[in-house]
Amino acid sequence: MYKQEILEAHELIRPYIHCTPVLTSSAIDQMIGCKIYFKCENFQKMGAFKMRGATHAILKLSESERHHGVVTHSSGNMAQAVSLAAQRLSIPAYIVMPENAPQAKKDAVRGYGGIITEVESTIEARQAEADRIVRERSATLIHPSNDINVILGQGTAAVELLRDYSDLDYIAVPVGGGGLLAGSAIAVHHHGEACKTIAGEPMAADDAYRSMQTGKIEKNESADTIADGLRTHLGDINFPIIQKYVEEIIRVEEAEIISAMRLIWERMKIIIEPSCAVPLAAITRQRNKFENKKVGIILSGGNVDLAKLPF
Amino acid sequence: MYKQEILEAHELIRPYIHCTPVLTSSAIDQMIGCKIYFKCENFQKMGAFKMRGATHAILKLSESERHHGVVTHSSGNMAQAVSLAAQRLSIPAYIVMPENAPQAKKDAVRGYGGIITEVESTIEARQAEADRIVRERSATLIHPSNDINVILGQGTAAVELLRDYSDLDYIAVPVGGGGLLAGSAIAVHHHGEACKTIAGEPMAADDAYRSMQTGKIEKNESADTIADGLRTHLGDINFPIIQKYVEEIIRVEEAEIISAMRLIWERMKIIIEPSCAVPLAAITRQRNKFENKKVGIILSGGNVDLAKLPF
Repeated sequence: MYKQEILEAHELIRPYIHCTPVLTSSAIDQMIGCKIYFKCENFQKMGAFKMRGATHAILKLSESERHHGVVTHSSGNMAQAVSLAAQRLSIPAYIVMPENAPQAKKDAVRGYGGIITEVESTIEARQAEADRIVRERSATLIHPSNDINVILGQGTAAVELLRDYSDLDYIAVPVGGGGLLAGSAIAVHHHGEACKTIAGEPMAADDAYRSMQTGKIEKNESADTIADGLRTHLGDINFPIIQKYVEEIIRVEEAEIISAMRLIWERMKIIIEPSCAVPLAAITRQRNKFENKKVGIILSGGNVDLAKLPF
Repeated sequence: MYKQEILEAHELIRPYIHCTPVLTSSAIDQMIGCKIYFKCENFQKMGAFKMRGATHAILKLSESERHHGVVTHSSGNMAQAVSLAAQRLSIPAYIVMPENAPQAKKDAVRGYGGIITEVESTIEARQAEADRIVRERSATLIHPSNDINVILGQGTAAVELLRDYSDLDYIAVPVGGGGLLAGSAIAVHHHGEACKTIAGEPMAADDAYRSMQTGKIEKNESADTIADGLRTHLGDINFPIIQKYVEEIIRVEEAEIISAMRLIWERMKIIIEPSCAVPLAAITRQRNKFENKKVGIILSGGNVDLAKLPF
């Protein structure tokens, strides 16, 4: 399913996104004992792969839907991605943000033309406000991860990676809401040769791992992880795709995430978010499994607060 | 002078170095009002352009000189560059370092096979120890910036940049010891079309600026700048080249350096040393001069101590 659709998604969004570079590091390869190809979505427009899914979802709207604009509730990359993608297509983007979101994130959203409504910092308040905007303005809600057009858009990073490196044994991505993982798994299943999809997940927010065990969507009671992009849970659209196409979810400790993040910063001289370090931490943890393999890693984004680094 | 020699240097070192990528940022271009091409020597082997000069100087040694090895005294990138270049060619590298140099730098040098001698942290002690090794081991001293083969090697980054972008109006580099500046100026003069070389220098260590004014090599009484790679002064081999071929040295304040560094980190998602931010700070300071121009900047290196960031 979606074999053709993901290629169409890629064609559709190509004029609006960067085809990001793939970097390698012989030092890291040597340390871990496999060959890693880093797909640098931290260099993507607005600094994260979310630009792909947001752009695709908006491009799939009808003329009349576009006219009424789009809504999302997010304090992170999706707010910026929807704002920028909407601005590029000259449609309004209503962004519901918690009032305690960092000023830098509010400024970034406004800089991309997003219209912010601030609400209390609870998921219920955010959802209620987004619903109100949908009702009153006939705007379309774009869910950050549980929307098939978003999922297909996110999967285009893996499509590009497999075009450049068709002989990968694995593609590894982080799992949070599940959009990137489901999209990548679709790309790998249909367009990889012998490639398999694996995910890395923080032990401290291991809802996706547990969901795979129990067969139903599990949530986190707490999610105290530095990988702040991965605190959310799976959705009913992406979970069946993940169940079907993902080989394994590998859990990692916080110290392993920080150490992998530091390795990428120091050896590759690129800035990545903590979430991006999770797949490298997973591969390092299970290095026997990946020995001498060719592994693609999607570095999901580079939007970090430089004043709050873990080292 | 050196028109052919710099191309020969490039041919000679090519198998041993990365041809580094050139990145651009539409956000930064828009902010400053010109088009900037960043030559990413922070992605160079061992993380800095010094790898080019060190490799070239070692490759120019005779068989017998190579046998006796090389010496340098440096606590920074040159120590690592000479170690790695020598290791690659299987010759011994004797590195004289101040005993109070950070452990991480000592570890890096050892990791690249350098043989460290620790001395008191004065320039006299370092020089004396290096002289002793030259005498006792018949090793060859490689000066980090005042050696024509080092200068020609450093200039090969500009050779590559001009091959990719032949219509640049300016190439801007930081100036410390003067090796990168002299080498880049040779490349620009002989192999640029209408291109000119400019340099950025910290106000707090403006010896090169003053040297250009007085016509003799000036030194810094103090050099309290975050751009720690730029605290050294020019030498008698590179200064005449700089006098002849460099259009202007622009001085910048510390706050301007930090702000330019932050801009590159945040917008480009790449890690650069404070020294690399100096040319961007210079262009920002004199933005009228560069309005609508095409400017190449050599991002000289990415070796920073993540525990000591200025933001």
